[in-house]
Order: sequence, then structure tokens, then C-alpha cells
Amino acid sequence: MWHYQAPLRDMHFILEHWLQAPQAWSQMPAFEALDLPLALQVLGEAGRFSADVLAPLNSSGDRQGCRFDNGRVSTPDGFVQAYRAFAEGGWPALACDEAFGGQGLPQLLDAALQEMLYASNHAWAMYTGIAHGAYLCLKTHAPQWIKERYLPQIVSGEALPTMCLTEPQAGSDVGLLRCRAEPQGDGSYRLSGSKLFISGGEHDLTENILHLVLARLPGAPTGSRGISLFLVPRRLDDGQTNALRCDGIEHKMGIKGSATCSLVFDGAQGWLIGEANHGLAAMFVMMNSARLHVGLQGLGHAEAAWQNAYTYALERRQMRAPKRPVGVAAEAVDPIHYHPAMRRVLLELQACAEGMRAVGYWAAHLLDQAEHAPDMATRQSALQLAELLTPVIKAFFTEQGFRLASNALQVFGGYGYVAEFAIEQTLRDSRIAMIYEGSNEIQANDLLLRKVLGDEGRALAQLLAVMREEAGQDCETAGCTGFGAELALLCDKLEGVHLEIRDQAVEDGEYPYRAAGGFLRLCGLALLAFAWTRAARVGRLLPDSDPLRVSKLQTASFFFAYLLPEADQRIAAIRAAKAPLPFLSEFL
Amino acid sequence: MWHYQAPLRDMHFILEHWLQAPQAWSQMPAFEALDLPLALQVLGEAGRFSADVLAPLNSSGDRQGCRFDNGRVSTPDGFVQAYRAFAEGGWPALACDEAFGGQGLPQLLDAALQEMLYASNHAWAMYTGIAHGAYLCLKTHAPQWIKERYLPQIVSGEALPTMCLTEPQAGSDVGLLRCRAEPQGDGSYRLSGSKLFISGGEHDLTENILHLVLARLPGAPTGSRGISLFLVPRRLDDGQTNALRCDGIEHKMGIKGSATCSLVFDGAQGWLIGEANHGLAAMFVMMNSARLHVGLQGLGHAEAAWQNAYTYALERRQMRAPKRPVGVAAEAVDPIHYHPAMRRVLLELQACAEGMRAVGYWAAHLLDQAEHAPDMATRQSALQLAELLTPVIKAFFTEQGFRLASNALQVFGGYGYVAEFAIEQTLRDSRIAMIYEGSNEIQANDLLLRKVLGDEGRALAQLLAVMREEAGQDCETAGCTGFGAELALLCDKLEGVHLEIRDQAVEDGEYPYRAAGGFLRLCGLALLAFAWTRAARVGRLLPDSDPLRVSKLQTASFFFAYLLPEADQRIAAIRAAKAPLPFLSEFL
Repeated sequence: MWHYQAPLRDMHFILEHWLQAPQAWSQMPAFEALDLPLALQVLGEAGRFSADVLAPLNSSGDRQGCRFDNGRVSTPDGFVQAYRAFAEGGWPALACDEAFGGQGLPQLLDAALQEMLYASNHAWAMYTGIAHGAYLCLKTHAPQWIKERYLPQIVSGEALPTMCLTEPQAGSDVGLLRCRAEPQGDGSYRLSGSKLFISGGEHDLTENILHLVLARLPGAPTGSRGISLFLVPRRLDDGQTNALRCDGIEHKMGIKGSATCSLVFDGAQGWLIGEANHGLAAMFVMMNSARLHVGLQGLGHAEAAWQNAYTYALERRQMRAPKRPVGVAAEAVDPIHYHPAMRRVLLELQACAEGMRAVGYWAAHLLDQAEHAPDMATRQSALQLAELLTPVIKAFFTEQGFRLASNALQVFGGYGYVAEFAIEQTLRDSRIAMIYEGSNEIQANDLLLRKVLGDEGRALAQLLAVMREEAGQDCETAGCTGFGAELALLCDKLEGVHLEIRDQAVEDGEYPYRAAGGFLRLCGLALLAFAWTRAARVGRLLPDSDPLRVSKLQTASFFFAYLLPEADQRIAAIRAAKAPLPFLSEFL
Repeated sequence: MWHYQAPLRDMHFILEHWLQAPQAWSQMPAFEALDLPLALQVLGEAGRFSADVLAPLNSSGDRQGCRFDNGRVSTPDGFVQAYRAFAEGGWPALACDEAFGGQGLPQLLDAALQEMLYASNHAWAMYTGIAHGAYLCLKTHAPQWIKERYLPQIVSGEALPTMCLTEPQAGSDVGLLRCRAEPQGDGSYRLSGSKLFISGGEHDLTENILHLVLARLPGAPTGSRGISLFLVPRRLDDGQTNALRCDGIEHKMGIKGSATCSLVFDGAQGWLIGEANHGLAAMFVMMNSARLHVGLQGLGHAEAAWQNAYTYALERRQMRAPKRPVGVAAEAVDPIHYHPAMRRVLLELQACAEGMRAVGYWAAHLLDQAEHAPDMATRQSALQLAELLTPVIKAFFTEQGFRLASNALQVFGGYGYVAEFAIEQTLRDSRIAMIYEGSNEIQANDLLLRKVLGDEGRALAQLLAVMREEAGQDCETAGCTGFGAELALLCDKLEGVHLEIRDQAVEDGEYPYRAAGGFLRLCGLALLAFAWTRAARVGRLLPDSDPLRVSKLQTASFFFAYLLPEADQRIAAIRAAKAPLPFLSEFL
């Protein structure tokens, strides 16, 4: 019953018109061989793989889950075969360097691929999702022999990597970790300790698993400045199993087909990646990519929720609606998508999914520019913007993914609560993305404290300049009734709120922490307003006969009328947070 | 790990001070034997039953679920024994007439009991939750012989009733149902057809199950005016099994210990309850009680989520907080409840749980007054208010229950997503309450279209008068800094919004349907504002040494500063809904 088709039409629209990516690619030597038809061909293949191979395993994988038996993990039926097809299709190589066997395509196309993988089967995509970040981390920080030995394994899909950060006492606070690494004198280390919540820490998809492990060297400083990064393969070169084991998998609310493992390192052999005590810095290389990926999970769930709710709403008939479309005769019982409350939910799903897609792909495109733009100034400014967008995309998209999944579930009524339609699985699966890869509260602090206040508003000013340029363009275009003016007004408000927070923080250093959640959500709404202003404008480039042209304008109108008013509420909430927030221990 | 203790201290506060229930009881002959100590004793016993018997079965019941085998349903281990203890404790009789073996206690105490049952074990409480509504329905509409035969079985707990409304094609639109009833000439009927999503449609808790079934008589009008209500017992008086069977149970997202059954009636013997073709009217007798109960599920989940999140936040330490309470020395790692984002979540949980409790109990108290107040004017006005509050309580409380459960889950970080702490179960269990017993969208239409516009604002005016009286009292009391003034302002806004909607609806009949969801949520926030204005005022009646006195004032301050600003957003959203809302088929 649950179904998924890749939204190739909207992807095409974003690449060609919203981003004008082909023009940008033609400026970057790395992508000079790439054009729009080739990009669309790649996405079309990815769409087929997602719809034909992964989507059919989504519900069955949830029902079956992973099995743990004596240290070994079996993934649900079909996962291994799907992974083989994925690797044989060359998908792990998509955005990797040709030097290591990669295809050298942009992160932008990888973002679209990831959206499709997460939307069609979040649990399965957990196994492959970390690979690109690990690839980047090793490519940037690993010694040459490790790059030569292991990068081709990741690029070919022969091995899958993990990220081993969390320990029972160290979640958001990675500085509390205790895992130890002892140098062996031969350039290798022996790692000992326990890691928790390791996605893909053990599985049957690949022979080897490459663990990227944070641990402490002897005598390292306490806290986050005494953490180093190591590569610890499950299988050593001599074919021996390394001294590490999986001693259990979690029983989770969702993504049940993803093995979330407890790992015990018992003197396992590993190698230092990057400098001693600079493990977090080495890991930060993969952070933008990993957090963008998690944001794309929220987008994927929103898209899947929208497709399934829309299909159901077309078929299900209950009660007479107060109005129906012009020319449709009244009947005793209308399809539920005529009912205002359902129309509202469905339009919100569409407006958010399409708006988030534009914003998410823009961030990926900025990462491409940060790496490949011909001039350094463009690279730096693209990186600065991408780093500002990253926490918003991670937190706002995942919160929306969960909320929208819940709204979509409501469209199904009682059928939404039962397994048959699997929309309840979308709700369960989507919830994890608000937690991992830095909880959404951590993202909010990262955005406001570090990326905005910590940088004296420079990156924010850059974002505002981009949005104001769009707002100005819109004003010159007839027909887009006032979207640009609304976007410009919102930019002024966002700028004003930033200055208010900055000034208030001088006397109340805790205030930004209280305002951070509201500020992040305000930024998310501003990005959607930007997305829809531009979508309405560039939608006019489509031929009159293209239904997408009308759709983009209507959905933009819906966004500005129905969804944007939340921005003022978030501003009010940010101001309200000037009030003291009691400590609970004061009165309980 | 998951735990629950009945919030007896807050219940006491609401009964004694917020509602001044003992004074009201002393005016009602039915409750003249009841005083505060007796009421608190009853609640104390109910609290022990919930904490000691039901709460320990909550997680195990979820893990085990119900088993279906050849038409029979087995509930999870311990459910049968818990039910026996419940019946032997006399709990089904609590608010039933002494004439049928009941204890004749107020609905108010039953509401507190239900909150505890739902909070400690929602799935288990599904079996008993419908009993009081069915009791009311039969008491009001059944022929005398049925009352004499079956009401004592319900009151003693010997039999459990069900409500059989939904059919595959008839969910929100009960008028579409097809189940048939053929008169047999002997006063009985033969019922045939399929019913879906019947909670407790089959189980092993009682020997007999009393199905209240909606069906059509031969030649009945189509739609909802051709529906009649029947009593169809599972076991007939001669000991034979009636011609009905359970042919499956649903695999649901949550409340897995509750058997949600498909029932097939195959010429089952039944008896008409109330008048032919007036089945919906007969069922409406149980509607206020049933919808209040579902609202109490939202309250129960909020309370359980609050307790569990608070306990975890006291123990878990991560990172240094930007501030800590006065007198607490700085440490490298603080308990997470010092962190502003977590304090915010925890205070919201507390403010909503306690505020909803006051409002929910008030509605139950109004139902008592509607039945037992000495003068007819008081009865009528209490009923009118209770009927206005009912959809708000059903929809707003259940939406809050789900949102707050998700917020509480976030406090646990990764541990929130795994089964160990069972907060993810609270999230899953809570989601159903937004759907059944009239979806929240149906409630919003009921509130705005029927209870407010349909009644020309009379009930709303009555509510506003009550809230304004509270607002005025507050102004006379020193120390409650401006809560009354804020409440008075909110009353003016709510009144203004109502008039705006009424006027706009003249030319745009669909507008109220588009505004209904926002209007309901605005009413929910107004009720919380009322609850906290009064709680702060009457909290001053507590002794200075009582920590609850400080707690109530602080939480009220938090509510007005941090949560009430949402009301303006809802007003903005109601106004935004004046914009046209496209039909999806127009452009897809």
C-alpha cells in the first residue's frame, strides 16, 4: 500500500531553473563534462533504483527488523541483494574523486540521490548514508597508505564505514568519552572501550566494516581537546577478525531494519587519522555533509508522506465537502481532498517538501562551489553560507519531516494508525532524525551562538543579501503578487531580531540559549519564503502548458498566506524568551 | 525504567481550591455524603492501583501485544488479573447509580480515575474506558428489561461493553454504514455486517461482551437519519454464543495491548436501544463523556511524559550549562535540566499537564452539575458549557499529549528512541487519541460550526463571562502580576475573532471550515490561560511553606511569558485562512 516514486519533475525544475546548476557546473573545471541531460539521466536511474528496489523493502524491513545472534547481525530479507545492486550500480562512487575510483559528480546530485534513498527506505539507507562523510574525512586526514588501501573500498562499496562517537555516558557531550587508545610502537594503536548507538556497527552487507572511532590517547587532556580519531577495520589485512564485537542491537521505535549496535573494543588494532588530540577537528570535515544528509531524511519523509497521503485522499470518500472545484457536480460523498482541513494538510506537505528540496539542494550546490569554484572568494563565501545553512537544514527539515508525517497520518484516519498503509512507519522512522547527528537543540545553539553571534553576523548578512536580491528581482516581475515584498520584509525582521538578541545577550548571557530554538525555526521559515519567492519567479520560465507552472504559483501563494504567518509567532517567541526561565529544582 | 505515580497533590489542589468542589457537592443532594477527605481517599486508592498494578504492565503489554487465534483474543500477561482486581475494587461502579449497584460518586472523581488509568496503561484502560459511556447510553435509552439485566453487569464489571460504529467505508462519515438489522417479530433483531476498529471487540477479560452496534433497519432512510442502535451481547442468556465473530485484530503503531478488532455479525441477535432511526441521538448521550475521556488520555500522556522526562533530566549529566541555580557551584558537567532548552521543555510539560488537568476536571464537574445541580438554570448552563468545552478538550488535549510526548522523548536523546525507557511508547500510544472518537478535524468543525456559530455565540459568551470573572478577581489580588489583565485581553481577542469569523462566513461559507482548526487551538490556549490565572490566585490560599504555592506562581509566569504568545499566532492563522485554499485537483 505504501508507495514511493522519485519526484523527478521537481528535481529537474530545481536543477535547471531554481539553481541554474548547469551554468554553475560549466564554470567549474571538475564538472565541465556534466550537463543537464546527463544529470537527469543519473537521477532517473537513482529514482528507478529507489522505487523498484528499495521502496518494496521498506515495510517488510520494518516488520522483520534486524536479528542479532551471537555477535552477528542479519539485516532484513532483501537488504543484502539491494546493497549488491547499489554497489554494482556504482552509486557509492557518485560524488567521489576519480582518483579513488569515483565518478566525480557533484554533491548536488548526491543530495538528490540521498533524498531518494531515505524517502524510499530510511532504514536501509542508514548503512550507506555515512559513507560519503567517512570518505571525505579519510581523504582529508588519513595517511597516504590508508587512503590508498581503504578509500577505493568505500568508493566501490566493498566496505561500509561507521562513525563511533557515542558512549553510554557521552551523548551530546562527546567530551565525556572514555574509550582508550594505546600506541603499540609500530604506528598502530590498541583501542578499548564501549560504544553505543552505532548505526551499521555490524551487519551482513559487506565483508569488512571500517569503524571511525573517537578515543583518548594516554595522558590526553580531559574534555573534547583530548580526543583522537582512529580507523579500526572489522577485518584486518591478514584476514583475522579485529578484537571488537557487537554485543547487542537496540529495539527502536523505528528504522528497525537499521542495526543500531553496541560495540565493545577489546584491544582492537587501529590507526590514527589526523593529529593526536584533534579527532573532533578531523571528524568535523564530515559534519556538513552528514548533517545535510540528516536534513535530507526529513525532506525524504515529507515527500513520502505527501505522496501517500495524496493518493489516499484522492480515493477515500467521506461526507460532503462545503465546496468543490468549479465544474464538479455535488455528490452525497466527496473525496476527502475536497474537505478544507485535508486540503490544508496536503498543501502544507507539498509546500514544505518542495520548498525544503530547493533549500537542501542549494546547500549541496554551495558545498560543490566551496570545493570547486574557480575563484577563492566564491569558494569561501559558498562555504560560509553552507555552514550557516547546515544546522537549519538538519534541525528544521527533520522537525518538519516528523510533523508532516504526523499530519499525513491524520489524513488516513484510523487507517493511519495501523501497519497496513505504513504511514505510521514514516512517522516512527522520521523521529530519530531530530535526535542523532547532533540533537536539534544542539543545532539551534550551533546556529545562533556559533554561526551567527560567534561570527558577528557576517554569514547571516550574506544570506540576507542573497534573499534580498531575490526579493528585488521578484518586484520587477509582473504577476508574482507581492512575494518579493514579503520576503524583503521578513529579511528586515530577521536582521532586526538578530540585533535584538545580540544586544540583549550583553547583559543576559543565557538569553541566546533560550532564544535559539525559535531563531532556528525563524531561519527555516525564511529559507522556505526564499525558496517559494524564487520558485514562483522561475516557474514563469516554464511553458504555459506545463501544469508545474500553475502549481508553483499556487503553492507559493498558499505558503505566503497560510504558512509564513508562523514567522511572526517565532519572533514573538524569541522576544518572550527574554522573560526569566525558572530552574526546576527551585520549587520541586 | 518507565514509571508513573498519580499526581495526587495536584488533584487535591484542583478539587479543593481550583474547583472548590466540596462546596458544590454540598449543594447537590446526590453528593451530600461526599466530602474532601473521602474524595481524596478514593483518589489515593485509584493512584495506588494505577501505580502498583497497571503501570508495571505498560511496557510489557506493549512488547507482548494481543494474540489472535481462531477468533479468540488473548490480552498480554497480567491484563486479566489486573482487570479482576479492578472489578473487585469496585472501580467500574464509581460514578454509576446506586440503583444499579453503583457508588454514585461524581464524574469528577471518575475523570481523575480515568486520567490515572490512561496515564499508567492506555492500552489496558481501553477495555474499561467505554463502560461509563455505554452505561449512560443504556440507562437513558434502553427498555427497562435490558437496564435491569445488563446495567448491573456493567456496573459490577462482569461484562464489558463496546461501541461498534466504524465500517471499512464508514469512518468519520458514519452515515455511510451498511450493517443491517432484520426484525424477528419477537422484539429482537438479527444483525449482519462487518465492523472495523472495534476496541475490545473480543478479549479474555470478561465472559460476556456487550456490543452497542449501529445498523440500518429495512427501508431505513439513507445517510445518518436511517441509523438505529442495538445491543448485541456476545453470549446470549441461554449460554449460547451469539452469531458474531472476531476475524482479526489490527497491528497498530501503539496501544498494542488493546485488541482492535474486526467483527463480523452474521445474523446475530440484538435488541433495539432507543427509537428506530434515532441511533445517533441515542449514542450522543455517551459522546460528551467519551470525548472527555479521550481528552483525559492526552492529559494522562502529558503527565506520564512529564514525570519520566523530569526524572531522567535530574539524573543525566551532559555539558556545562550557561547558568545554574543560585548557590549551586559550577561543575564541568551539569544535569541536563539546567540547560535552557531542557528547562523550557520540562516547564512546558508541567504547565500543560497541570493546566489541562484543571480544565478537564472542570468539564467533568460541569457534567455533574448538569445532572445534579438543584436548579434547572444551573443544570442547563453547566451542560451548555460542558458541550462547548468537550471538542476543545478532546482535540486540544490529545494534540498536546502527542506533542508533549515527542518533546519529552527529545529530553532522553538517543535513549528516547529505544524501547528501554518506553517514552517512545508514550509517543506511539498517544497518537491514536487524535484520530478516534471523532478525529480532531471533526472536533474543530463541531466546535466552530455547531457549538459557536450554530448557537449564535451563546455558549461562548457564557465561557467568556466565566473567564472574565476570573480575570477581574485576579486584578483585585496583589502579587499575581498581570495574569488577569492578560486573560481579559485574550477574552476580548477571542470574542473579536468569533465576530470576524461570523461576519466573514456570510459571504464565504467555507471560511469557518478553514478557520476551525486554528479557532479550536485558540480556545485551548484561552482555557489554559484561564486555568493558570485561577491557579495562581487560589495557589495563594496554600500555606507559605507549601512548595506548591511557589510552583503554581512560577509555572503560571512561565505559561504567560512563554506559551501564551501562541494565541496571537493562532489569531493570525485564523485571519490568514481568509485567503483562498486551492483544490489540489486544479493543478495536479
